[in-house]
Amino acid sequence: MGKNLTKRSEDYSKWYNELVVKADLAENSAVRGCMVIKPYGFAIWEKMQAELDRMFKETGHQNAYFPLFVPKSLFEAEEKNAEGFAKECAVVTHYRLQNDPDKPGKLRVDPNAKLEEELVVRPTSEAIIWNTYKGWIQSYRDLPLLINQWANVVRWEMRTRLFLRTAEFLWQEGHTAHATEAEAVEEAKTMNGVYAQFAEEFMAMPVVQGVKTESERFAGAIETYCIEALMQDGKALQAGTSHFLGQNFAKAFDVKFATKEGKQEHVWATSWGVSTRLVGALIMSHSDDNGLVLPPKLAPIQVVIVPIYKGEDQLDAISDKVAPLVKELRAKGISVKFDNRDTHKPGFKFNEYELKGVPVRLAIGQRDLENGTYEVARRDTLVKETVPMDDVVAKIEFLLDDIQKNIYQKAHSFREDNITEVDTYEEFKKVLDEKGGFISAHWDGTNETEEKIKDETKATIRCIPLATENKEGKCMVTGELSSKRVLFAKAY
Amino acid sequence: MGKNLTKRSEDYSKWYNELVVKADLAENSAVRGCMVIKPYGFAIWEKMQAELDRMFKETGHQNAYFPLFVPKSLFEAEEKNAEGFAKECAVVTHYRLQNDPDKPGKLRVDPNAKLEEELVVRPTSEAIIWNTYKGWIQSYRDLPLLINQWANVVRWEMRTRLFLRTAEFLWQEGHTAHATEAEAVEEAKTMNGVYAQFAEEFMAMPVVQGVKTESERFAGAIETYCIEALMQDGKALQAGTSHFLGQNFAKAFDVKFATKEGKQEHVWATSWGVSTRLVGALIMSHSDDNGLVLPPKLAPIQVVIVPIYKGEDQLDAISDKVAPLVKELRAKGISVKFDNRDTHKPGFKFNEYELKGVPVRLAIGQRDLENGTYEVARRDTLVKETVPMDDVVAKIEFLLDDIQKNIYQKAHSFREDNITEVDTYEEFKKVLDEKGGFISAHWDGTNETEEKIKDETKATIRCIPLATENKEGKCMVTGELSSKRVLFAKAY
Repeated sequence: MGKNLTKRSEDYSKWYNELVVKADLAENSAVRGCMVIKPYGFAIWEKMQAELDRMFKETGHQNAYFPLFVPKSLFEAEEKNAEGFAKECAVVTHYRLQNDPDKPGKLRVDPNAKLEEELVVRPTSEAIIWNTYKGWIQSYRDLPLLINQWANVVRWEMRTRLFLRTAEFLWQEGHTAHATEAEAVEEAKTMNGVYAQFAEEFMAMPVVQGVKTESERFAGAIETYCIEALMQDGKALQAGTSHFLGQNFAKAFDVKFATKEGKQEHVWATSWGVSTRLVGALIMSHSDDNGLVLPPKLAPIQVVIVPIYKGEDQLDAISDKVAPLVKELRAKGISVKFDNRDTHKPGFKFNEYELKGVPVRLAIGQRDLENGTYEVARRDTLVKETVPMDDVVAKIEFLLDDIQKNIYQKAHSFREDNITEVDTYEEFKKVLDEKGGFISAHWDGTNETEEKIKDETKATIRCIPLATENKEGKCMVTGELSSKRVLFAKAY
Repeated sequence: MGKNLTKRSEDYSKWYNELVVKADLAENSAVRGCMVIKPYGFAIWEKMQAELDRMFKETGHQNAYFPLFVPKSLFEAEEKNAEGFAKECAVVTHYRLQNDPDKPGKLRVDPNAKLEEELVVRPTSEAIIWNTYKGWIQSYRDLPLLINQWANVVRWEMRTRLFLRTAEFLWQEGHTAHATEAEAVEEAKTMNGVYAQFAEEFMAMPVVQGVKTESERFAGAIETYCIEALMQDGKALQAGTSHFLGQNFAKAFDVKFATKEGKQEHVWATSWGVSTRLVGALIMSHSDDNGLVLPPKLAPIQVVIVPIYKGEDQLDAISDKVAPLVKELRAKGISVKFDNRDTHKPGFKFNEYELKGVPVRLAIGQRDLENGTYEVARRDTLVKETVPMDDVVAKIEFLLDDIQKNIYQKAHSFREDNITEVDTYEEFKKVLDEKGGFISAHWDGTNETEEKIKDETKATIRCIPLATENKEGKCMVTGELSSKRVLFAKAY
């Protein structure tokens, strides 16, 4: 297999699309805008799920499952949310097909099987969940209610891209209910923090935590917290969001609780989610012109061993050497594959595992057998070295740790090098054109100015960073007072 | 909380429905026929998923994800499959809602957003998957293709019951492709065996492995293997199926491969699935008039510890004793909950955990503190005993093992006591009326006779058991020759 991958510098977007397909991560399906997640891509998502699920449970959340469909009347109940999602939702109107009398062998919708009320395929589940919570919450004893759901959702997007934006995607959505505003705000912040920790520790992807401006908020939210990452092409990617929903849904669905003092009050809510989009973010954060670069903590295969042999006898001798190593690595919880296929040459295999981003590759041939060595290659830097067999386990453990750190550092340096402070709109446009990345600038806080900048430059305010201290300045466009710099970027 | 559970002997069906709701497993939703799986019920499903997923991976399968929607033209392609599912499928016809001009604040389907081709919400995924496999399979080197998907599916059932039959349910569906007929048949049998092993080892639910008659086969299958279990009311429940699909789907979607000899041949297929229905089967296999009885291997909480105290000081003293025990149990992988809520009395908690089927309950009060003991109760037999603190970990380990075995034995004895051999149709009807259970009888092998029995008695042929040896006899209805007894029952 030649990799034949377009170079990032030639066409970043094409590079991404080719890589997703060639590395066997996903492909487009027969359904407009929906993708098939192939086993290798799905294995990455499973690893993400396992870590996130553990983190959610450690922070006191439980999983549950709510219906795929939202009856139209519930969907309508929270007005802003409905307005935000109505334009892109799949609607079930019938519950039966029948033989088409005009076309033998074909089916058609049975006109007699029209639903009394249309069902929306969930684009997000606030409506169906808050309608359910009404029955679960009576008293302060029932709070907080901390629930997460792993599910598929559908948003009829017009322009789709594998993992980054698809009509159907997989995600998790947390939906919590609290007795006080302060507790709900704290929950929204905590979960945004969990996302940031996951992104940095497991995906090796540095993120900026912040809040969205009003125009970029989730439909129905009072405040949207987010994590924003920078891709190698200088565009930002929203990697996760956590919403403080106030009492909007509690009021729309009349969810009240009796306080300790016996008063009836509306409940305070949050919701938060990350999706298979994270796989796209992971790919774009670290991969290079040779293919994927995966962080060891999320790599489906952490170590691959390729034998280089002529004839059965050499393969047998190599297999004998490799078997105890495989066993030892597995006992340490390291996922390892010994690729002894005789249908493909070593060079083909090297290419394949480079393309698929396997962090550590071992090769072993006749000379290694004689010398008691392995050739060990790391995917991130492509550096190879010869390692004595006795040292190879320690070397692998070191490399898995070191690659994880190294790709984080690399992405972090890139991000830091690509945050530019500007004070004038001219400078802003220049940096956006010539360099891209995050641009830190003063903004007057109005939708109007934000809209103007977006229209004129395609850059949006990615977030108002949480970590930045307030410092007065003047809006680069209007000159009005501003209390804090915000981060702009073109975004996925 | 009083349990107020209807007795099984009074109304088994009512007992089941009440138990599912009172034990916080699931409830009906605002969407016709769709359920909400509550955290406690979902935790059982998660445990099932974890074990099954491990077993699938150990037998060489990988997970992937395919679209929720099946375009109508693909859905039609395999005729029998389409015919089998067309009558009960949810159909998406539009992709947008708009403000209803006649009803302010309400939405309606946007007539300008009609899909060119309707999308069926998957009732099962053979069509979309085989359409995809066409692109994945070219040569014998691409086979076998062993893939599983965890997903939601929708079948518009008219009569639904929580877990047992719902419009939307969660399941896994394996879809494999093979070079030879023999290998595909072997795969279908192997996976049916995996289901049987899972049912018996983890659910403690004895099952009969068999094949379905033609009329009970999966739409589009050549042979359907199944596992059948017997519920406490004498009705059978199909707990899992595995289908040998022959070349039906390969032909419908034109999936061919080049053999080693360079010939083009159609691929051979299987599919197999189990669903959240298993939670219903689990409930009905073991539970009693006091509530759930869960097998320790699938219980979300295996051990609960209830303190019996007056005042903070006693609770502190108890907590000090309990803390190292909790730690020790967790280190052994035993899930344990220390319920120190001060909002509920011990009696309430005892009732709650009995209702929720927690296998082992410990209680500890002032006298236990003085004597260095725990009161240990097992859920299956409700037997209590006093155990010295030093012995309690060993006792718990023994009990978790013993309860798992005991409830399997109990279910197995019940099943064995409720398989009745009959030789005449009169006897058949009498046993069916008075005793129920599986009835083993000779049948002439025709759809006609099977249909007549079903019409007259509501009993169906659950399966032709795999383990039973052939032994000639005469059909109880027609007197025609039969080579083997088959198992009849009324079924869920």
